[in-house]
Amino acid sequence: MTDNPLDNIRIVLVGTLYSGNVGSACRAMANMGIRHLRLAAPNIQDKNWIEGQKMAVHADDVLNNREEFATFEEAIADCVAVVGTTARGGLYRQHVRAPRDCAAEILERAATGPVAVVFGREDKGLLNEEIAQCTHLIRIPVDEGYTSINLAQAVLVTSYELFTASGHYQPPHEKAPAAPQAQKAQLMKMWREMLEEIGYMDETKADHMMQGIHRVFSRGVVTKDDAALLLGVARQTMWAWREKGLGKRG
Amino acid sequence: MTDNPLDNIRIVLVGTLYSGNVGSACRAMANMGIRHLRLAAPNIQDKNWIEGQKMAVHADDVLNNREEFATFEEAIADCVAVVGTTARGGLYRQHVRAPRDCAAEILERAATGPVAVVFGREDKGLLNEEIAQCTHLIRIPVDEGYTSINLAQAVLVTSYELFTASGHYQPPHEKAPAAPQAQKAQLMKMWREMLEEIGYMDETKADHMMQGIHRVFSRGVVTKDDAALLLGVARQTMWAWREKGLGKRG
Repeated sequence: MTDNPLDNIRIVLVGTLYSGNVGSACRAMANMGIRHLRLAAPNIQDKNWIEGQKMAVHADDVLNNREEFATFEEAIADCVAVVGTTARGGLYRQHVRAPRDCAAEILERAATGPVAVVFGREDKGLLNEEIAQCTHLIRIPVDEGYTSINLAQAVLVTSYELFTASGHYQPPHEKAPAAPQAQKAQLMKMWREMLEEIGYMDETKADHMMQGIHRVFSRGVVTKDDAALLLGVARQTMWAWREKGLGKRG
Repeated sequence: MTDNPLDNIRIVLVGTLYSGNVGSACRAMANMGIRHLRLAAPNIQDKNWIEGQKMAVHADDVLNNREEFATFEEAIADCVAVVGTTARGGLYRQHVRAPRDCAAEILERAATGPVAVVFGREDKGLLNEEIAQCTHLIRIPVDEGYTSINLAQAVLVTSYELFTASGHYQPPHEKAPAAPQAQKAQLMKMWREMLEEIGYMDETKADHMMQGIHRVFSRGVVTKDDAALLLGVARQTMWAWREKGLGKRG
C-alpha cells in the first residue's frame, strides 16, 4: 500500500522505436507526478539515446531509472491491473473507455499494487495478443479528421487524467490483496484448457470465446482470492471430468 | 457564428524559438479538432523548418496555413477573448484557473467570434505586458516536483480540454456581437486616460490600479455594446471634467 497511488503507476512502452519519444514521455510523466517507466521489448533505433536524453530535459532521472524487459508478459507480471491504450476499435477492443471515465478506477487498483498503463509501437500500436492481456482498455478522444496521436502525447493525456483524478482520490474499501497479472494469466490458461477439455468449445472458436471470458474476468477478478476461487473451479471441473473417464487425458 | 466553436479557436504562439515545437503543436491541435495557428513575433532559429515539418507529420496543413504577425497585439486584434497560459503565479496572474474549469466558458466566447489561446516562449513564457492583455488566464495542473511543461504538451492539454468540452457544448443565449480585442484595448486606454485626468490615480500607481480595472472588465465586458457603453462613460466623464475647467487639457 502507498499513500499516493501515482507511485504505483507503471508506464509501459511496448516495442518503442524512437528514443526521442521515450524522452518526451519521461518529461510528460514527471509533469504529472508519475516516475516509473518500463520498456517491454524495446526496439530503439538510436543506440546512444541522443534524442531521448535531450527530450527528457530534467526528467532524466525517470529515463535513467527505467526498467527493461525482454517481453511484454514479464513487464506486466507483477501488476494488479493492466490498462491498454488503443486508437482503434474492433473485435478485441470492445470494452474501451475514455481515460477520464476510467481514471478513478485505475487509481483504486493502484492503491492495492502496481498498475501497468501500456502504450504500443509508434507504427502499429498494441498487437491483438497484447490487448488480450489487458484488464482495462482506454482510447483517448481525438478528432476523427486526425486520429494518429504521438506516443508521448498519448502518455501525457493519460497521465494528466490520472494526476487530475488523484487530487480527488479516496482510498478504496477493498482490503484483500489484489491478484497479480501472472496469476490472472494462469487463470485464463487453465480455463481455456478446461473449457476445451470438457468440449465447451473447439479450437477454432477458442480465441473468440476466451475473449468473452476475459472480458468478464477482467471486470470481476480483482483479488487473489477471486483468482484462486476460479482456478479451483477449473481444477475441480477437470478432475471430475477425468474421473468419469471422459477427459482427453483421463 | 459557427456551428463548431473549435473552428473559432486561434492557437497563438508568442516568440517561439524551435520549429519542432511548432510542428508538434500542429499535430496536437489537429488531434483535437483545432486547425488555426498564429505565430506572434516568431523567433524560429531553424529557418528551413526541418524539425517543424517533421514533427507536424500529417498535420502539415495546419503548419502551412499558419498566420504570422509582427506583434502580439496584431495577432489578437480581432479576438473576442484572449486566454493566456502561464506556469507561474504572481501579481499579474491572480485570476488563474485550470483549463478544465474554463473550457466551457472559452467555447461560449468562441461561438461569438475568434478566441485566442496564447502560449509564451519556451524559455520565459508570456511577459507581464502580454499577460495584462489577456481576458482569461489558465494554468495546467502539474506536479510540483517538475512544473516545466513542453510547449507542444501545453498546447495538447489545453486543446484536449476544449475538444472534450465541445462534446457537451450548448450554444449560448447571448446573441449580441462580441467586442473584439482592439475595441477592448481602446477601452482600457481611454479609462486610464480618464482616471488619470480626474485625479483618481497618479502615474506611479496607474499600472497597479489598471490591473484591477482590467480584471473587472475582462469578466464583465463581453459584447460590443458593453465596450461602447464604458467607452461612453470615459468620454462623458472627461468632457464634463473639462467643461468645469478642471481637466489637464480643459
